[in-house]
Amino acid sequence: MHSIQQKAAQIRLVIFDIDGVLTSGALFIGDNGQEYKAFHSRDGHGLRMLQDSGVQVAIITGRSSKVVQHRAKDLGIQHVYQGRREKLPAFEELLHATGFSAEQVAYVGDDVMDLPIMIRTGLAVAVQDAHSLVKKQAHWLTPSNGGMGAGRDVCELIMDAQGTLEPALAAYLVK
Amino acid sequence: MHSIQQKAAQIRLVIFDIDGVLTSGALFIGDNGQEYKAFHSRDGHGLRMLQDSGVQVAIITGRSSKVVQHRAKDLGIQHVYQGRREKLPAFEELLHATGFSAEQVAYVGDDVMDLPIMIRTGLAVAVQDAHSLVKKQAHWLTPSNGGMGAGRDVCELIMDAQGTLEPALAAYLVK
Amino acid sequence: MHSIQQKAAQIRLVIFDIDGVLTSGALFIGDNGQEYKAFHSRDGHGLRMLQDSGVQVAIITGRSSKVVQHRAKDLGIQHVYQGRREKLPAFEELLHATGFSAEQVAYVGDDVMDLPIMIRTGLAVAVQDAHSLVKKQAHWLTPSNGGMGAGRDVCELIMDAQGTLEPALAAYLVK
Amino acid sequence: MHSIQQKAAQIRLVIFDIDGVLTSGALFIGDNGQEYKAFHSRDGHGLRMLQDSGVQVAIITGRSSKVVQHRAKDLGIQHVYQGRREKLPAFEELLHATGFSAEQVAYVGDDVMDLPIMIRTGLAVAVQDAHSLVKKQAHWLTPSNGGMGAGRDVCELIMDAQGTLEPALAAYLVK
Repeated sequence: MHSIQQKAAQIRLVIFDIDGVLTSGALFIGDNGQEYKAFHSRDGHGLRMLQDSGVQVAIITGRSSKVVQHRAKDLGIQHVYQGRREKLPAFEELLHATGFSAEQVAYVGDDVMDLPIMIRTGLAVAVQDAHSLVKKQAHWLTPSNGGMGAGRDVCELIMDAQGTLEPALAAYLVK
Repeated sequence: MHSIQQKAAQIRLVIFDIDGVLTSGALFIGDNGQEYKAFHSRDGHGLRMLQDSGVQVAIITGRSSKVVQHRAKDLGIQHVYQGRREKLPAFEELLHATGFSAEQVAYVGDDVMDLPIMIRTGLAVAVQDAHSLVKKQAHWLTPSNGGMGAGRDVCELIMDAQGTLEPALAAYLVK
Repeated sequence: MHSIQQKAAQIRLVIFDIDGVLTSGALFIGDNGQEYKAFHSRDGHGLRMLQDSGVQVAIITGRSSKVVQHRAKDLGIQHVYQGRREKLPAFEELLHATGFSAEQVAYVGDDVMDLPIMIRTGLAVAVQDAHSLVKKQAHWLTPSNGGMGAGRDVCELIMDAQGTLEPALAAYLVK
Repeated sequence: MHSIQQKAAQIRLVIFDIDGVLTSGALFIGDNGQEYKAFHSRDGHGLRMLQDSGVQVAIITGRSSKVVQHRAKDLGIQHVYQGRREKLPAFEELLHATGFSAEQVAYVGDDVMDLPIMIRTGLAVAVQDAHSLVKKQAHWLTPSNGGMGAGRDVCELIMDAQGTLEPALAAYLVK
């Protein structure tokens, strides 16, 4: 079995960074300081399928924004850590809260602040347009850029390795 | 006659998914949970020309958003089914309401939730950047990506097959 | 002298379509039906330089939006015709109001509704990603796509042909 | 030592234009004239790292927008000059206020209004998709387009030349 699939097969929890991973990195800011982000609909369906398959999902992000609360709620994501420019303590809290080992956790990042967690997880993923150092440290690169389907790529990699992707997709093709 | 044109010639109703088809898939979300979508002006004119040619247009979408109501109203689209993550019942309601057979209906999609309808319609279209499984099941791929003119591509394919495109365009060239 | 430069040299008024020309065609719509458009900063500077050189600028657009009023005011554009899906009457009003002949007018468009004016003007320009029929009818294609600098391309084409570009740019290089 | 690195090694202050440099040039405008800009998260982290390394950051922009105040505050940028279509006086005020010589200052621009400052600074940078004349006058072109990481490119060029990049990045890789 391919090494990446072996790593993906053992994952019980996937942590996503937000800006540059579930978005393109674009921070929309208005006259009054209000913020907007652009997520992708196909990432959303991947996150739902992944959770339905029994894998948990978490968000750890350096910025803090009410936008993320809304998106996380919409997608049923329970573990949300915002305003954590130092991401490592949030990672340790999350391991403690869920009881998973670092080998059972995947992290998806795009920038250097993501490295402290990435180098400790069982599956370190960089989006296609990540910072060069992040790509160098990753076990796997998503075919898609951040915000353009990179999240979906990760969900399907893990479900495929765990044998849950084919039955989930087959259900859509029943006549 | 080419097979795709034969299928397109019999279409009386075109169903469009929204996110990833009439948009790029980008879901813009603000601080207060408010939502925004980016439609394309050239899709809009295609949908107007298609309806003027006598073909009906419907929307079936998994998400639910007031944005879609506004856009549908602007384009004179009468059949709007939102919040239908299970899309097949909406499809059956729509066939019942309009009296068309599945062979007279085209569906334009980008993701796996669209497959249950796509495999039942007379003309199944995937946008250029659709999920790989959706592209595999489609009769036709639009040259354009979702939100970048894919809707217009479909309108012109059908009008061309039905002989209504050339006169509609010729009217703009009368001196 | 090249034919396009000859046509450009005689232009006294440039008419721009909005959606797909001064924007990418993206129509951003919010929950309450509010609209947003994305213009380009480099187009803005081109339109200012063109007007400073003595060429007038007008907008004729099929849709109607308060956004366009704000952008036109910001750029000092006096002639604004909105909600004109039938664009030809607006064109005739504009010729009457300004006293220019059709040969002295350029039109920049992206879609088939633009054709009735384009085929009557002295210089018909299509943006790089215009509808295929519009590109076919144009005297010139902008190197840039709509909303990505196509407006600036037109301003510099005309100023270059009229000998006003080089001095305007040279002023920025005075030590 | 490479000439660009020599120039970068002496920089104590980096001036960024906003539209087209820290954004793609897109000016989002709403129904009521409200404005929005899209910044990039990876630029933000670069600007924080650059300031942490002891280099100062300034903004000089031709347009005026409350959006810029919000972004500048978020990034801890002290020197903000807006509404300066004539950019040279702002540049001179900034030199006076900081006490730096022009050789110690870098400027990052995309359009011709940026040229009067660029031709006077120790390091003139154009974004990859800048106006052709701006690219021609620049000492260095960023690999990335404006709003897509061009700001980060500049921060890392300067930190690399000053020997502060490697230790800053190494800190993220400590096990």
